[in-house]
Amino acid sequence: MRREGARGYELLQSLCDDVGPRFPCTAGDVAAIAWAKEALSRAGLSNVRSEAAPATLWERGHESCTVYLPRAQPLSLTSLGGSVATPDAGLSADIVAFDSLDALDAAPVAEVEGRIVYLHHVMPKLRDGTGYNAGSVARTAGPSRAARKGAVGFLVRSIGTETVRSPHTGALFYEPGVAQIPAAALAIPDGDQLRRQLARGHRVRAELKLGCRPLPVGTSANVLAELPGTSEEIVLLGAHLDSWELGTGALDDGAGCVIAIEAARLLGALGLKPKRTIRVGLFANEELGIGGGLAYAATRNDEAKLHAAAIEADQGDGRPWSLRVPLGQRESELSKRLHSALEGLEIGLDEGQSRGGVDISPLKQLGVPFVDLRQDATRYFDFHHTANDVIDNVSREDLVHATVAFAVTVWILANADERYSAP
Amino acid sequence: MRREGARGYELLQSLCDDVGPRFPCTAGDVAAIAWAKEALSRAGLSNVRSEAAPATLWERGHESCTVYLPRAQPLSLTSLGGSVATPDAGLSADIVAFDSLDALDAAPVAEVEGRIVYLHHVMPKLRDGTGYNAGSVARTAGPSRAARKGAVGFLVRSIGTETVRSPHTGALFYEPGVAQIPAAALAIPDGDQLRRQLARGHRVRAELKLGCRPLPVGTSANVLAELPGTSEEIVLLGAHLDSWELGTGALDDGAGCVIAIEAARLLGALGLKPKRTIRVGLFANEELGIGGGLAYAATRNDEAKLHAAAIEADQGDGRPWSLRVPLGQRESELSKRLHSALEGLEIGLDEGQSRGGVDISPLKQLGVPFVDLRQDATRYFDFHHTANDVIDNVSREDLVHATVAFAVTVWILANADERYSAP
Repeated sequence: MRREGARGYELLQSLCDDVGPRFPCTAGDVAAIAWAKEALSRAGLSNVRSEAAPATLWERGHESCTVYLPRAQPLSLTSLGGSVATPDAGLSADIVAFDSLDALDAAPVAEVEGRIVYLHHVMPKLRDGTGYNAGSVARTAGPSRAARKGAVGFLVRSIGTETVRSPHTGALFYEPGVAQIPAAALAIPDGDQLRRQLARGHRVRAELKLGCRPLPVGTSANVLAELPGTSEEIVLLGAHLDSWELGTGALDDGAGCVIAIEAARLLGALGLKPKRTIRVGLFANEELGIGGGLAYAATRNDEAKLHAAAIEADQGDGRPWSLRVPLGQRESELSKRLHSALEGLEIGLDEGQSRGGVDISPLKQLGVPFVDLRQDATRYFDFHHTANDVIDNVSREDLVHATVAFAVTVWILANADERYSAP
Repeated sequence: MRREGARGYELLQSLCDDVGPRFPCTAGDVAAIAWAKEALSRAGLSNVRSEAAPATLWERGHESCTVYLPRAQPLSLTSLGGSVATPDAGLSADIVAFDSLDALDAAPVAEVEGRIVYLHHVMPKLRDGTGYNAGSVARTAGPSRAARKGAVGFLVRSIGTETVRSPHTGALFYEPGVAQIPAAALAIPDGDQLRRQLARGHRVRAELKLGCRPLPVGTSANVLAELPGTSEEIVLLGAHLDSWELGTGALDDGAGCVIAIEAARLLGALGLKPKRTIRVGLFANEELGIGGGLAYAATRNDEAKLHAAAIEADQGDGRPWSLRVPLGQRESELSKRLHSALEGLEIGLDEGQSRGGVDISPLKQLGVPFVDLRQDATRYFDFHHTANDVIDNVSREDLVHATVAFAVTVWILANADERYSAP
């Protein structure tokens, strides 16, 4: 007999094993789109289709960093998404460390010019995952903030929470008009060691070689499917199909895709017919430019106002612990109904307002109200954006739990007489 | 004020940061010998000296493995210590998987010949670390067992317990007269995925490229120092100074070196003068040939019989939980005295007989009795022999605890009227 809840886990295993990494416009991305269409069809959903979406392209290539003084040692690092390459022969410079962007901003130019900046930002491990907010700013904004002071390269301590030698990638953002310098993340133990060596007054020189390069913009696709309702309104349940290529994207965001597919399948399999259409949206290219989410919003036209709510699953297999609704509507009947249903899954009603996931965030401009199911992110950033984002680090039980919570939430949103309004 | 117990941890940090990896006859090994002499002198010990020891040399070089079918994917792997290289152009062959050495032995030659054998040995995570025994046999004996049936390459699931993409190295043993085939360990998630793909009936072909090579035998050194006693007898407290080069050897066996140095320093700092000399032995080349331990035993001559006991710290920072004494002497007065002292540290008296660590094991032939302090190995094999064997994964508190337990044990062995006899 099939193990309880095994269906979603097996679906995720198939995505990880048979498709693998899904970086935009690679063979894996193409395979993932075909995989998603088949999975959505098998789930009994209707109107399975893809919609073209532009995708930012970039290639990682080779990468290495060796530090010299007090002794030669190769560091474990990986390029930040979108980084330019170093010269082929490598980039050699002294390293100067700062513990925050503020400290970097406050430093005299003479301290930074001609050097590689190492930003020693330490991300805390928290259930709500908020440590990632400041962390991702350090990573995305750091390269240009360093370049403004004449730095020739940028290294950041991995924006993650696990002391393994698996560095954490993620996008950077080059400010227009500022020199673009090569940028990479050090694994946490490597960053910590470098910080200690500098703190002891050692002069540390590094040779950085990054072979990454931006490529022309390409085309990927969002994959959509529906459990049709009786009204013309829509509740959107989103996730993203693309992944970084270091692991197999099991948690980010294979788990979200499987939660969305399985939640919709479950409702259909129960013979339920929702009032509003439940649309599953598996978006392209979240990791490097939000190409899929932007294309979806840009092409809704008259359909935009029919979106009664949008919700996204993009925090891995974490058990939801808190529901967030639009500003000022926490005391509404709809919120009470959701809370009452979710309480049994140990999910509370949050004080804060809903924000939407990255893929659905462009719908804000179109007046679509968001609902958030906040998932437990305690372990998520141990694996996220690293080579360790693999099925072995997914909890079968948590995945089932999250799927049920999303199914309950979406069902209530699709069938309520009233709907939320955008704040 | 210095934090309680910080001295040992800081000593270990200096070994990891300032010396780093200590593979025999590399610059790190030379630096480690100098570091050890200085650390032993600063600990107030006497007769600090080194004794030459032959060292097996080997170089890892580049390593890669890409599997093809159902899709191209690079696997995370590392060569086994002592492995021969593949041809420069790589070795391409189909993979056949076995779940145990027995299953490999039972397979018909036709199933193995011309293929790469993947041995899917799953090591259990246990406090007593005994999962490593069968695991290391799978690794050391596997290559020749596969080669006997005509395999052209050998892969083993990492002999470790953590689902990260950091493969676990360790020595292999080529049987004389059997073809030497290239051999490597896959990271656990990579091995598990390969096993699933083969179980689903996929044909999996791999291209393996290993650039490792044996080098001529070289010379390293054991470093010895003493807290002198009033009699001519000796209690040997051993650890090994060398390490694999993937991490910085923080747990294996930097922690053991620091435990040994600090235990002896503590006793001296208390103004204690033992009856028997307490000798700290930091051995060379444990990982690939036991060169240091063999040289020590081979050169003791008349001194061998003066060894009243030998004990080794080579299980990282784990808290000791059990004392093992020589066969038939569990009920002796000496065992009772040790047990009584160690009970306060929550250390029990084991039913099994003592075996000695790897470095001191050659002393068995010379009639030296062993005492074992078994350390909690639950987390040890999450990091051991991988790139994650770094200071970040050492517990400051556990290191202090282990140091105290070794100090107490060695003190009692050095001062008892009686001594254990070898079984």
